[in-house]
Amino acid sequence: MPRYALTIEYDGGPFVGWQRQANGVSIQQRLEEAVFAINGEFVVVHGAGRTDAGVHALGQVAHIDLKRIWREDRLRDAINAHLRPSPIAVISAQAVGDDFEARFSARARHYRYVIDNRRAPLALQFGRAWHVKRALDAEAMHAAAQTLIGKFDFTTFRASECQAKSPVRTLDRLDVRRSGEVIEILASAQSFLHNQVRSLAGSLEHVGSGKWRVEDLRHALDARDRARCGQVAPPHGLYLVKVDY
Amino acid sequence: MPRYALTIEYDGGPFVGWQRQANGVSIQQRLEEAVFAINGEFVVVHGAGRTDAGVHALGQVAHIDLKRIWREDRLRDAINAHLRPSPIAVISAQAVGDDFEARFSARARHYRYVIDNRRAPLALQFGRAWHVKRALDAEAMHAAAQTLIGKFDFTTFRASECQAKSPVRTLDRLDVRRSGEVIEILASAQSFLHNQVRSLAGSLEHVGSGKWRVEDLRHALDARDRARCGQVAPPHGLYLVKVDY
Repeated sequence: MPRYALTIEYDGGPFVGWQRQANGVSIQQRLEEAVFAINGEFVVVHGAGRTDAGVHALGQVAHIDLKRIWREDRLRDAINAHLRPSPIAVISAQAVGDDFEARFSARARHYRYVIDNRRAPLALQFGRAWHVKRALDAEAMHAAAQTLIGKFDFTTFRASECQAKSPVRTLDRLDVRRSGEVIEILASAQSFLHNQVRSLAGSLEHVGSGKWRVEDLRHALDARDRARCGQVAPPHGLYLVKVDY
Repeated sequence: MPRYALTIEYDGGPFVGWQRQANGVSIQQRLEEAVFAINGEFVVVHGAGRTDAGVHALGQVAHIDLKRIWREDRLRDAINAHLRPSPIAVISAQAVGDDFEARFSARARHYRYVIDNRRAPLALQFGRAWHVKRALDAEAMHAAAQTLIGKFDFTTFRASECQAKSPVRTLDRLDVRRSGEVIEILASAQSFLHNQVRSLAGSLEHVGSGKWRVEDLRHALDARDRARCGQVAPPHGLYLVKVDY
């Protein structure tokens, strides 16, 4: 059966998350329905990352095994026709080998966390960024973030329900930069623990607001204690930007 | 009565436009309701530009006359509290003199028109950009746009229902630039005719797609004939960015 990799964009707002579940409509379910409509047989859509409810994607990747060979652009257009009117779009479809696994072949995952740091409520960015009213020091946040680059036990920044066998991950990038009222946190690793980026973003907010000193972030990491996580930032500020293979 | 200038952001999607009208909720109406709630007396909210249904704003400006003096930040917060949950936000409030008129004191208005130029449907940018599937040549669009800079009779690019006395306007800027799949058209003038930016954007799309040659845009202008306008681009790609005083 020919295998295809799909690059997918979505607004996570209306969904219960990437993964199929009983309590509502997931992105995976909508994709599986659309693929069923064109393939005539049910196939699982295997994603690279199981984003939580409300989390967005600019470049989620998934693979599917289809009954017949498709021209890549026709496959993209056919699935998209059946996704309407859900805010999910297949950006591209690409034929790949049998050994390609969206989740296990990934070499790096890149996330962006967006904070809109202003007094006024959000109108155009509502549901697309975390609204933080008190002024944040992005330089302090960046300095603190750099102390977490490398291979560590990230127990502090991991959801209690995380199913990964090991809490050890290698964080390759955690940059914080401000452009006007918008603060972006850019996080890259081969893989992340459940809620890791949101736990890091929430704790970095404590550094930015002055509630934590720069060195407190590293102290929290070293404690390897979930209770030491500052806070988990809300899902609607998070974007899965890109997966490298 | 103390006068205040408000800088306002909104998602134009759910509204019938800036101006109060019988057929639905306008941005002006929601603002007037919120100001009434804090002022105790009805006052008109006078806007700098009457954006159409679906058009967004990052920096609309309006003025109001209130019964008493307010601290600027308190006024901003009080109006915002009464705007919820509408996607309208007062970014700032500023005390101004009696001679300040949001509409008539404006020295320049800056608009941005956003085209998302890709095959796949829009998920995150749905309702926030014009989706154009065929590949557009942004450089040709920019070259054509430059032939319209200056003082001209813009009858071709003016809605038939436009109420301005004169069709003559001075276009100070009409830049077209591409960044990845996104094409931005940046238009600046002291004032614009009704539908002028959307008429220019729609006609520039014809140049970008090759339906029109670069020189056809100027020929359409010179014809001073509304029938020669290429097309009116949809409202949801348009943003009122800033008003200068």
